[in-house]
Amino acid sequence: MHANYVIMGKTEISTLGEFGLIRHLTENIKPVQPSTEKGVGDDAAVMNYGNDERVLMTTDLLLEGIHFNLEYVPLKHLGYKAAVVNFSDIYAMNGTPTQITVSLGISKRFGVEDIEALYDGIRLACERYGVDLVGGDTSASMTGLTISITCLGTAKAEDIIYRNGAKEHNLVCVTGNLGTAYMGLQLLERERLVAQGNEKAQLAFEGKEYLLERQLKPEARRDIIAKLREAGIKPTAMMDISDGLSSEILHICHQSNCGCSIYEDKLPIDYQAAVLAEEMNLNIVTCALNGGEDYELLFTCDINDYEKLVPIEDVYIIGHITKPEYGAVLVGRNGEEMMLQAQGWQAF
Amino acid sequence: MHANYVIMGKTEISTLGEFGLIRHLTENIKPVQPSTEKGVGDDAAVMNYGNDERVLMTTDLLLEGIHFNLEYVPLKHLGYKAAVVNFSDIYAMNGTPTQITVSLGISKRFGVEDIEALYDGIRLACERYGVDLVGGDTSASMTGLTISITCLGTAKAEDIIYRNGAKEHNLVCVTGNLGTAYMGLQLLERERLVAQGNEKAQLAFEGKEYLLERQLKPEARRDIIAKLREAGIKPTAMMDISDGLSSEILHICHQSNCGCSIYEDKLPIDYQAAVLAEEMNLNIVTCALNGGEDYELLFTCDINDYEKLVPIEDVYIIGHITKPEYGAVLVGRNGEEMMLQAQGWQAF
Repeated sequence: MHANYVIMGKTEISTLGEFGLIRHLTENIKPVQPSTEKGVGDDAAVMNYGNDERVLMTTDLLLEGIHFNLEYVPLKHLGYKAAVVNFSDIYAMNGTPTQITVSLGISKRFGVEDIEALYDGIRLACERYGVDLVGGDTSASMTGLTISITCLGTAKAEDIIYRNGAKEHNLVCVTGNLGTAYMGLQLLERERLVAQGNEKAQLAFEGKEYLLERQLKPEARRDIIAKLREAGIKPTAMMDISDGLSSEILHICHQSNCGCSIYEDKLPIDYQAAVLAEEMNLNIVTCALNGGEDYELLFTCDINDYEKLVPIEDVYIIGHITKPEYGAVLVGRNGEEMMLQAQGWQAF
Repeated sequence: MHANYVIMGKTEISTLGEFGLIRHLTENIKPVQPSTEKGVGDDAAVMNYGNDERVLMTTDLLLEGIHFNLEYVPLKHLGYKAAVVNFSDIYAMNGTPTQITVSLGISKRFGVEDIEALYDGIRLACERYGVDLVGGDTSASMTGLTISITCLGTAKAEDIIYRNGAKEHNLVCVTGNLGTAYMGLQLLERERLVAQGNEKAQLAFEGKEYLLERQLKPEARRDIIAKLREAGIKPTAMMDISDGLSSEILHICHQSNCGCSIYEDKLPIDYQAAVLAEEMNLNIVTCALNGGEDYELLFTCDINDYEKLVPIEDVYIIGHITKPEYGAVLVGRNGEEMMLQAQGWQAF
């Protein structure tokens, strides 16, 4: 009792950043269980419990004030999103999500109806994606709302796609569009500020519903996983885009020991997002690269798959894989090259 | 934006309590995945991915200010305990813990060294129990420390023990001793109050180290699981004691549709805990029944196992299972009977 156990004179976490901290904490971890096939370092861990079916496991922690603001996020949407972002990680391994556990920390501010609304959203997501809610933990909280979801999934051993399989000359592809969820967040934030102190403010959401939907109710790209399979394409590397394209492509380059060239004019950008970015004086390309929360897929595949790839709706070839010494490069519209930078959470 | 999405005029969660809320939220959940063998309602969920080995899954959320107080809990101990309480749930299904994911929400108050200390504890627990840390999520937090751990384990299908298998005339057994972790917490709380405003206060922990250990560094009863197996005893129902014996035996009675008679004079109580309770004017039997955090095992087994059971160290027969209409009864030293009451977290 002579001292609080929180250490004094210590190193601020911001000196490492989120990714640095995780690397630092996990670098010496060596699996000892024969059933652990892949531990830390991909969208999901991979376990082998003695048959051809592998078990995938991923987890996501959402904290009020960091990941969501209940001033503009309905609890049902929040529940839906909290579940879907986990499913997205399982699909990103080329697997199928099967079960989740849900842990909630709930402060006194919340009533039974609030938690019902949150659960309604979680249940809706589970229904749509065919996933079972199999357990969890519910606790009082001193402060805001805490949501921790862990998801299990399955995949045949030979189907699993890691981040480390990208090869030189592979095509780099993304799905949907990028930066839209971020622009949805900007819109919500702007309207929150407008509405502050003015309960009757008319909100300027008309014609921008898609941006809100991308932010508030993202979907996991199960459809693309199915279409790639139908087309007979197995990506060489894959992950979902939760922290922004720049961070994610750097993960693939790092783990696959390669470089890449991404072409600015190939980045899929939604026109509503572009219009709003213009209106708000933001650079839409920066938003597309670093915005985060799009939950689209980023994958690489063999150049021989080009013909099969082109007919698949909502898949965009944005560049190709290069030798590691070239680094991860963005080629601008004018041909100028710049190195891609990781962003991740800077909230520390 | 016209209203915060937290619902107004709502039902306070305290009207349901923790167990009531969980029941309310999960009562309509029906598994659809063929791989889900047992969902909500036991120490762990049970999945069948197509071979004889079942996958168990459990999760635990620990929140600063609710589950721990960093004024007297060293971060390394906290990490150790956060992992072990999950292992305990897997052993309580008669399984073996194999993998965990660890999610942390970290406020600015914490430095890299703090999180290293926490991780050291988690890693130590993993090493001792042969469990792999395979993933997680790390995030900034607006307020205190959040720790969410999910644990996977395995068990052969025929070995799994649920809460619903207790039968009339079965013996009711517990391991170790009860109420000790709670007395450890009382001791820490008392010394915290004594030390407040007095940095040099001599702490009266001498001779009470065991109580502190039970609170700060609990172990999962892997040893008992092994001994029961060696002795050829398969309990009919089992769970771990995290919320106090009363709550837990009521879960078994409810799920097994039975009653029970528990004998006050059979409850295993540590003498140091009893002395401190006396000193602090607490009823040690109440502490043993409702204290929580002992992480001992509670199980029922066939009366024919009696001879094999008696030689096993640290296992205590405290009563027997009765017909459901008798309810869950505590028989006092004087022969008086009282009904057992569930406690659980009252923090809402």
